[in-house]
Amino acid sequence: MDINDAYERLLKEVYDYIVLLQIKNILDWDFETYMPSKGVEQRGEELAMIAKLRHDRITNPKIGELIQAIKNDPNYSSLDLVKRRNVVLTEREYNRESKIPKELVEKIAKHTPIAIDTWKKAKKESNYLLFKPALDKMIELTKEKAYCLDPDKEPFDALVEKYEPGMSSAHYSALFKELKEGLIPVIQKCISSPNQPNITLIKRKLPISIQKQLSEDISQLVLYDLERGRIDETEHPFTTGYYDDVRITTHYYEEDFSDSFYSVLHEAGHGIYEQNLLQEYKYQLVGEFASYGIHESQSRFIENLIGRSSEFWEFYLPRLKKMTGNVFSDVELDLFVHALNEVKPSKIRITADEVTYSLHIIIRFEIERDLLAGKITTDQLPDVWNEKYREYLGVDVENDAEGVLQDTHWAGGSFSYFPSYAMGNIYNAHMLEIIARDIPDYKELIKKGELNFIIDWLVENVHSVSNLYDPPELIKRITGEEISPKYFIKYLEEKFSKIYGF
Amino acid sequence: MDINDAYERLLKEVYDYIVLLQIKNILDWDFETYMPSKGVEQRGEELAMIAKLRHDRITNPKIGELIQAIKNDPNYSSLDLVKRRNVVLTEREYNRESKIPKELVEKIAKHTPIAIDTWKKAKKESNYLLFKPALDKMIELTKEKAYCLDPDKEPFDALVEKYEPGMSSAHYSALFKELKEGLIPVIQKCISSPNQPNITLIKRKLPISIQKQLSEDISQLVLYDLERGRIDETEHPFTTGYYDDVRITTHYYEEDFSDSFYSVLHEAGHGIYEQNLLQEYKYQLVGEFASYGIHESQSRFIENLIGRSSEFWEFYLPRLKKMTGNVFSDVELDLFVHALNEVKPSKIRITADEVTYSLHIIIRFEIERDLLAGKITTDQLPDVWNEKYREYLGVDVENDAEGVLQDTHWAGGSFSYFPSYAMGNIYNAHMLEIIARDIPDYKELIKKGELNFIIDWLVENVHSVSNLYDPPELIKRITGEEISPKYFIKYLEEKFSKIYGF
Repeated sequence: MDINDAYERLLKEVYDYIVLLQIKNILDWDFETYMPSKGVEQRGEELAMIAKLRHDRITNPKIGELIQAIKNDPNYSSLDLVKRRNVVLTEREYNRESKIPKELVEKIAKHTPIAIDTWKKAKKESNYLLFKPALDKMIELTKEKAYCLDPDKEPFDALVEKYEPGMSSAHYSALFKELKEGLIPVIQKCISSPNQPNITLIKRKLPISIQKQLSEDISQLVLYDLERGRIDETEHPFTTGYYDDVRITTHYYEEDFSDSFYSVLHEAGHGIYEQNLLQEYKYQLVGEFASYGIHESQSRFIENLIGRSSEFWEFYLPRLKKMTGNVFSDVELDLFVHALNEVKPSKIRITADEVTYSLHIIIRFEIERDLLAGKITTDQLPDVWNEKYREYLGVDVENDAEGVLQDTHWAGGSFSYFPSYAMGNIYNAHMLEIIARDIPDYKELIKKGELNFIIDWLVENVHSVSNLYDPPELIKRITGEEISPKYFIKYLEEKFSKIYGF
Repeated sequence: MDINDAYERLLKEVYDYIVLLQIKNILDWDFETYMPSKGVEQRGEELAMIAKLRHDRITNPKIGELIQAIKNDPNYSSLDLVKRRNVVLTEREYNRESKIPKELVEKIAKHTPIAIDTWKKAKKESNYLLFKPALDKMIELTKEKAYCLDPDKEPFDALVEKYEPGMSSAHYSALFKELKEGLIPVIQKCISSPNQPNITLIKRKLPISIQKQLSEDISQLVLYDLERGRIDETEHPFTTGYYDDVRITTHYYEEDFSDSFYSVLHEAGHGIYEQNLLQEYKYQLVGEFASYGIHESQSRFIENLIGRSSEFWEFYLPRLKKMTGNVFSDVELDLFVHALNEVKPSKIRITADEVTYSLHIIIRFEIERDLLAGKITTDQLPDVWNEKYREYLGVDVENDAEGVLQDTHWAGGSFSYFPSYAMGNIYNAHMLEIIARDIPDYKELIKKGELNFIIDWLVENVHSVSNLYDPPELIKRITGEEISPKYFIKYLEEKFSKIYGF
């Protein structure tokens, strides 16, 4: 078979695999937004069907044959970069998925909506024991999957490839050690500073209807395309979709506009990544995002590096005042920015400040690694959780809803995912270094609300590069350096020394 | 192979086919409700994927082999009714779908959302020419499909089996001739009566928020389960779903509460049919609805036979008054019921009264039959449409938005579907005859708002029977008679002679 024919046939096989993922995305979105409460089991059957079909597609032996034919062809090296990357990515998925029995894939897919539904109820009642059986089953299935993927690796490491290609628990441990050592002094300086923020400035009652206008405004400000997306409300904000249908969600609290404000910025950051994947890569594996960590780098770039900067508020505070009647009419820029950037060790990850946030991740990383390795049981889990929160963050967790039940990830079977959040911080600080070099006046542009230059940079250097490179290589190509937490620490020190005056 | 093994394997093959249909239902629902406007083409790819997969499943030669094995087995006749019905239904789908090439299935699925999207835009602008190319393509694809199904039949007849098993254009023609002859005198008596309604009684401004409360109230009154369903807003109301996830939609007009009120009753009528299909038939073909006409019989039963009856309003008017402040406080029962039952030939099908409604269907039946047979071209279509409206209903269609562009069916590729609406009227009048015998005090029960007895009857005799029988047999089993329009005419004469006093 001609190499080009083989390649075209390979793309055709992959096409189904990707379109089925879009369908799964819609079913997942519907599950979280509008599905009737008693549709859970039926949805489980549907998701299991899609999972089974996707597994069938990507493990089709024809794919293995086509890959061999392509790679053994004398003209292989003359294929362009994109084509070779598609072959590599397909081979990777084929090899990985082929190791997992179809029955297990189905079981996991069927259990997932039920586990999430149980977790929701358990969280509402702050009743860990209600969730525990579903969690036990999810852990058991996950360990089985990890064993299939690589019986010689720790389960965490067998699973991590899916979220952060090229990473491992050892690499995370090293990075997180350095990260933690850099964070502690910044946290100490902030919390011991006499200069503490007045957070009542931001906790003012703002009608949901106005908050919804803010959501539209800021999502469009960061160039999220509402004709190819939409904003709905869910308990936990998320983004899902692909190219021309990428949806984000948020959650409104009347007494705290900043909660939804930053959720929308965060999710819009995810959204523009998906919306700006290169159109000519659509329906190819090279046309997916590079990793979950790179995804988080984009969401946290928009949320924090832009949205929590004093430069952004220099532009946006007058606009906020105009859009919100007299709710914020008396607030001053510096005090407002300080309130939005309060550094305070807390119990909840998603509302944590930029400095302490990564500690929440490190806790989860250590726990899930040990949970999968059997070093922690689900009986011990709440105690271990609470103990680590005391140790790392100095806070007392009083109930499981604000403790081990706060996140949906483990219910959804996403073990080894959490570190990607911290990697997002590390990656985007790397990127900011280069933006400062490429767009020397970027802070001035933010002050004027001209975000398009920075977003264009992200589109050019990250979004449209899509899945051409694994994260370590992508970062190296952008920055010329290896991944390191040093720029993130540097960014935090510079920013928070100004805000807290140390 | 043992016949029971073969049967179990057959059910397994069919399971995928049905779960994939549920997934399609969600994608269709999302397309009409919340999908971002520029997601149309992507959705086309997704729907084509599902269509292709469903086609693959049901045309799998293994199904043919299993059916042969079962039917040739000496124990075949000892299989119970349900099992034999599943075999018959599977064979029917297998034979029909096997005649249609996969490529055609994909083409139609891909074109459908695009055609619907074009139709929406064309209707908005009342611009038939904008829609025409998409319609031409849809007709061409539909004719190709009809030819594959049966090259010896007229296209209409080749297609009708899917919607109304056992029916044909000749049978429709005969029934509709009798129907029309029965309707004309009733219409004449109503419109020439000196006793005309005051429709301003119902056209009073009612806030959408209150109309939404009415939607919840009446849907639950007819036992539509909102934990296994939901009510959204779309341009055109519809129902979609299966068993534990059955969704309805409506459209609110501030100046006409009755529009949404009857849409909700109509769609809830569809909804309770799907929600009450027998649970033990779930994921089997016997667990689907009997036909589109039977579906319409249920929706129109709730909407008209209950919802437009004076007995219903004897119960509901006081409740409506209570729920709507002083908007309707002065209206009298008889005048209100008369206004809700105004008989007036009009241009729009979905808001037509019970008496003239079927004429709208007869017009569409004649046109689509001739359109598919090539006796009418799409160039002539608007003129033919307008001409028939003048002839049958005596109304002048002034623009295509209220003429040939009013319905979505042809854009969606649903040719040969329209007659099912009129069949719904015919079927449900048959059923009402038997209800009057089985529940002699049913009118008294309606007056008290105790609808559960009647709905239980529908559940027992129609919903839970699911797809055990084709419509003609189902009607015969319920009524002991052949399908005839006479009961519907009788019902209309009795009802409207009282209302109009002739």
